[in-house]
Amino acid sequence: MLPFSVTILGSSSALPTSTRFPTSQVVSLNERLYLIDCGEGTQIQLRKFRIKTSKINHIFISHLHGDHIFGLPGLISTMALGGKKGELHIYSHSELKMMMDNLMKFMNEFDDFKVVYHPLNFRSRAVIYEDSKIVIDSFPLKHRIPCCGFIFKEKLHELHLRGDRIDYLNIPIRDRVAIKGGADYQTPEGAIIPNHELTFPADPVRSYAFCTDTVCRKQIIPIIENVDLLYHEATFSDELSDLALKTYHTTARQAARLAGEAAVKKLIIGHFSSRYKSVKPLVDEARVVFPNTFPANDGDRFDL
Amino acid sequence: MLPFSVTILGSSSALPTSTRFPTSQVVSLNERLYLIDCGEGTQIQLRKFRIKTSKINHIFISHLHGDHIFGLPGLISTMALGGKKGELHIYSHSELKMMMDNLMKFMNEFDDFKVVYHPLNFRSRAVIYEDSKIVIDSFPLKHRIPCCGFIFKEKLHELHLRGDRIDYLNIPIRDRVAIKGGADYQTPEGAIIPNHELTFPADPVRSYAFCTDTVCRKQIIPIIENVDLLYHEATFSDELSDLALKTYHTTARQAARLAGEAAVKKLIIGHFSSRYKSVKPLVDEARVVFPNTFPANDGDRFDL
Repeated sequence: MLPFSVTILGSSSALPTSTRFPTSQVVSLNERLYLIDCGEGTQIQLRKFRIKTSKINHIFISHLHGDHIFGLPGLISTMALGGKKGELHIYSHSELKMMMDNLMKFMNEFDDFKVVYHPLNFRSRAVIYEDSKIVIDSFPLKHRIPCCGFIFKEKLHELHLRGDRIDYLNIPIRDRVAIKGGADYQTPEGAIIPNHELTFPADPVRSYAFCTDTVCRKQIIPIIENVDLLYHEATFSDELSDLALKTYHTTARQAARLAGEAAVKKLIIGHFSSRYKSVKPLVDEARVVFPNTFPANDGDRFDL
Repeated sequence: MLPFSVTILGSSSALPTSTRFPTSQVVSLNERLYLIDCGEGTQIQLRKFRIKTSKINHIFISHLHGDHIFGLPGLISTMALGGKKGELHIYSHSELKMMMDNLMKFMNEFDDFKVVYHPLNFRSRAVIYEDSKIVIDSFPLKHRIPCCGFIFKEKLHELHLRGDRIDYLNIPIRDRVAIKGGADYQTPEGAIIPNHELTFPADPVRSYAFCTDTVCRKQIIPIIENVDLLYHEATFSDELSDLALKTYHTTARQAARLAGEAAVKKLIIGHFSSRYKSVKPLVDEARVVFPNTFPANDGDRFDL
């Protein structure tokens, strides 16, 4: 299977702490890097965790609160000054372009490097990016300002050829691509060999869902159902559920309950309020409901 | 003498490195903190070096390149969320307000905390701030975009009373304030005692000049002459003097020569290009011309 992982660059909420930067993550699939959110200091974390800034070509921004975007201008400058070529694609609320253009108006022009902004749809689920290996959808969350979650899904893998059968039937190389795609095989004599006799099942398709900042929303269950890994914010413990509701955030217990109802395989909680010196109580609270819960810590890598 | 110091928060130029953040410094005089420039991660450095963000009420921004301002939105947010009250004064090019307002339009409103922007004058020297202890002037530098240097000067100190003479003449407390300010004393019998018989000289008045980003400018010598401490950028070594000129920066040798001609007491060089893994060659180059040169390193504190 191709390496597929999520690295936490920042796990704090609005106020960074001495050990937690504001929100940012890198999703890596087969050496392609996708950045989600970009709080202040994201470029510092990328350097610290030895992730190549130059390999990031796509950035997904959940919403326009400062702790999710204030690292963008510095990261973009560093990419440009570092000689990055081509296009950097940013998927966000349409206002971001104007905010960044204004802030960077005194930056030098770079002929070979360009930032391309793609406006997100905050009303319904939508495919926002696709390449040969992955499909990325956005879907609406519910926060004080428009906010999206993202789901990263591998594309269907090819079936594995059964070497013994392929050899025995002496199937030409040109026909094997179609068989890996699910086709039956017709011998020169006209006999049909069904696909399942020629192949082993494909590797399972893996998926990762990212949900912050939001109230706990049951409406997203059909979207995140059965994902291998769910990152969900848990800004507060359940004692502060009133505050969570008021500020449009989620408690650790609520996140765990959602993970259970959506039958996800593993839950990461993060976006912790800076009031928690230790996040163990939040993890404990979540594990009562959903045992396979882990806290996001800056630098942690989760392999799918 | 009141404690007067400069703490380096960032000493890199546009590209931060693993040990150097972009430009920012804190000047501290008698527990009052003045921030100069605010590159990305300034709030992180303030926390790391245990400097109280809440005590900063005045920020001076030399120019609007990203490596001098990208830490501002995060710092302002953190101040607001941390419950800072009153006014934060920012002295900068007039465009900064619009840039920040745009970027922070989705931030919550805070009733008791307000940012007040003061436009700088980029044509001539001007007093921009004054309180009971200090006067701060801006003066024009020469960079690719409008840029100012800053000079922090203590106000004249009071003269020290000569306890022996004061006691002998039995001078009432109410007259001593005027004597500390330089007045002579008239005895009840009408005799005039000249001030110099009643006082020792005041503590010397200390001063700090901050100059980045700029070509080396002899025109500023009358302004920075005799300062106790000069911070001057030295982005490049003298081998790259052509590049320095082209990008409107200064070499280490040029900064040292300027320090010598201005007869400053001590020189700090900084704003180092990220190409220098060690800045020792730049310090050595400067010391040939001006021996009392020191490199700026993140976390260094220089006492005046």
